[in-house]
Amino acid sequence: MDNVMQVELGDRTYPIYMGAGNLDKSNLLTKHIKSKQVVVVTNETIAPLYLDRVTKHLQDYQLEVIILPDGEQYKTLSTLDIIFNELLLKKFSRNATLIALGGGVIGDLSGFAAACYQRGIPFIQIPTTLLSQVDSSVGGKTGVNHALGKNMLGAFYQPQCVIIDVDVLDTLDDRQLAAGIAEVIKYGLIRDISFFEWIEANVTKLLARDKAALTYIIDRSCHNKAEVVACDERESGIRAILNLGHTFGHAIETGMGYGQYLHGEAVAIGTCQAAELSRQLGWLTEADVLRVKNIFQRIGLPIKAPESLSAETFLELMAVDKKNVDGDIRLILLKNLGEATLPVAVEKSELLKVLNN
Amino acid sequence: MDNVMQVELGDRTYPIYMGAGNLDKSNLLTKHIKSKQVVVVTNETIAPLYLDRVTKHLQDYQLEVIILPDGEQYKTLSTLDIIFNELLLKKFSRNATLIALGGGVIGDLSGFAAACYQRGIPFIQIPTTLLSQVDSSVGGKTGVNHALGKNMLGAFYQPQCVIIDVDVLDTLDDRQLAAGIAEVIKYGLIRDISFFEWIEANVTKLLARDKAALTYIIDRSCHNKAEVVACDERESGIRAILNLGHTFGHAIETGMGYGQYLHGEAVAIGTCQAAELSRQLGWLTEADVLRVKNIFQRIGLPIKAPESLSAETFLELMAVDKKNVDGDIRLILLKNLGEATLPVAVEKSELLKVLNN
Repeated sequence: MDNVMQVELGDRTYPIYMGAGNLDKSNLLTKHIKSKQVVVVTNETIAPLYLDRVTKHLQDYQLEVIILPDGEQYKTLSTLDIIFNELLLKKFSRNATLIALGGGVIGDLSGFAAACYQRGIPFIQIPTTLLSQVDSSVGGKTGVNHALGKNMLGAFYQPQCVIIDVDVLDTLDDRQLAAGIAEVIKYGLIRDISFFEWIEANVTKLLARDKAALTYIIDRSCHNKAEVVACDERESGIRAILNLGHTFGHAIETGMGYGQYLHGEAVAIGTCQAAELSRQLGWLTEADVLRVKNIFQRIGLPIKAPESLSAETFLELMAVDKKNVDGDIRLILLKNLGEATLPVAVEKSELLKVLNN
Repeated sequence: MDNVMQVELGDRTYPIYMGAGNLDKSNLLTKHIKSKQVVVVTNETIAPLYLDRVTKHLQDYQLEVIILPDGEQYKTLSTLDIIFNELLLKKFSRNATLIALGGGVIGDLSGFAAACYQRGIPFIQIPTTLLSQVDSSVGGKTGVNHALGKNMLGAFYQPQCVIIDVDVLDTLDDRQLAAGIAEVIKYGLIRDISFFEWIEANVTKLLARDKAALTYIIDRSCHNKAEVVACDERESGIRAILNLGHTFGHAIETGMGYGQYLHGEAVAIGTCQAAELSRQLGWLTEADVLRVKNIFQRIGLPIKAPESLSAETFLELMAVDKKNVDGDIRLILLKNLGEATLPVAVEKSELLKVLNN
């Protein structure tokens, strides 16, 4: 499969290229670079694996490479400053192009650096994890974490293009693969029940890294994401449904220390909690909730919140969330499997029932 | 005089309210606040003078106040983090409103904080210096400095409204007043020669702080700025003319240490250098250049670059500028008094003649 999909955003419309071997297609990359100055931002894990394959297309440019440490705990304002320093030392101009080569942390962080540097320079996403390919590289949400809350600082800033090479998943470890599938399952649960059913029927293929199955879930996930983002780029409405499980999940990531739980793992747990809450509110059946938990378990994902996180701490952490209004906690829940709600204000007593579970 | 001017930017259009006593008009402020949560960001100089006058309108809100140290040297990423910390500790949501009460540093810094916090919260500018009233509060340029370059990190982010009270200039010291007039003169030089002539004819009134004269220059400056910004919000073309004198000026601010020269002082020197360079290139006459220097001198502004800044250091610093392309220095110059060029790439030898002057 070799295809191109457009994220339709008016004058910010951009293509997502998907296909095996895309990393070696020089033209996909260079046709989106309008500057002499190019910086590649990547991390210590990805650099030895894929950096040369990208930089070999960039020999005719003034090329700089920034290699950051790997992990969610480095998605901070201070790491941003490493990028800014390097760009300024090298006198990079406002037309310079930034290429983010890595997973969600590299994409979010570098995208935010690109958004802020000289008030915005062009950037390109080359996501190297399943999670970043199906979710974080698409849609223009960039940002960093704060000790008091996940993704609390950032910008809506769209890339020039996203280049996905499904072959890079060959080097992804099992835990990262599973974490990526958590976000894939999300698309099924919020708006695409037949996709959810497809995943249920194809768990074995996915875990065996069947290339056609992986390509299929990336493609269908990106289509789902692109459709939602095209309707509501800056999340004033429908885009919030992409946050199913994320308010619980972010609280777990922040509360346990960034990097302890992978984002997808925290989202898996959070989605089970959101399903449980949806059942309490009379929307899902007990059987629905079991079905949700079951799919995550089969993928090898956690479904229970860490016991060390008390309900009180959980609540405290959930009070810092971008969907909240004037400090009131609001969550994405499920009306049915395949149908998410818009943000719903939930009684503290209902939340506590789930958190004490 | 009591008037309203619109900055026309499609769905980001907003009003500038101008008039004596605007600080006491509760409704100007509150009609632009859609949240319960409100934070006022100000500094140690302004707080004792005007904070109470603003917060007295905000008794029905969940109000927080952040008082920062005063000075250009605090316009940094680290000061941003003080704001982020406070907002997160208080669990401020994405609908919270930020009010920037202060001069250009407070406006730029707080505006950038508002742009980044949860990927963007509404903000309101209440500029308290002449410079911020005539220039920095209007047009949505927000940001912070970096040790290696002035205003290098930031966002284009428009406020909900700008509230200008000309009476607050009563407490502005003479040096700050003069620095503000430097940017006023700029509008005359780049696009409004009859305004330049008006300023020449009214220096005495301005220095005597004649209220009608001050009101007139604020009004005419804001009109000039709003017109330019409406044509080119994100500075892909004409907006760059507002940068006359700024490439030299920013190099002085960065090179001498932020806060040594006020922004307007550095711009006055830089504008004289730009005028000199425009003469070298055959555009201005010797008499034009003298006229430019003369008006700044009469206002009490510096017109010569600090001797401690060598031409080499100057060049090095100017190589970091947002108008540069692929590392080449580009400047706004004058074709005539009242007519600026778009960014012009200038030979190093020509630049050195000015810098060694």
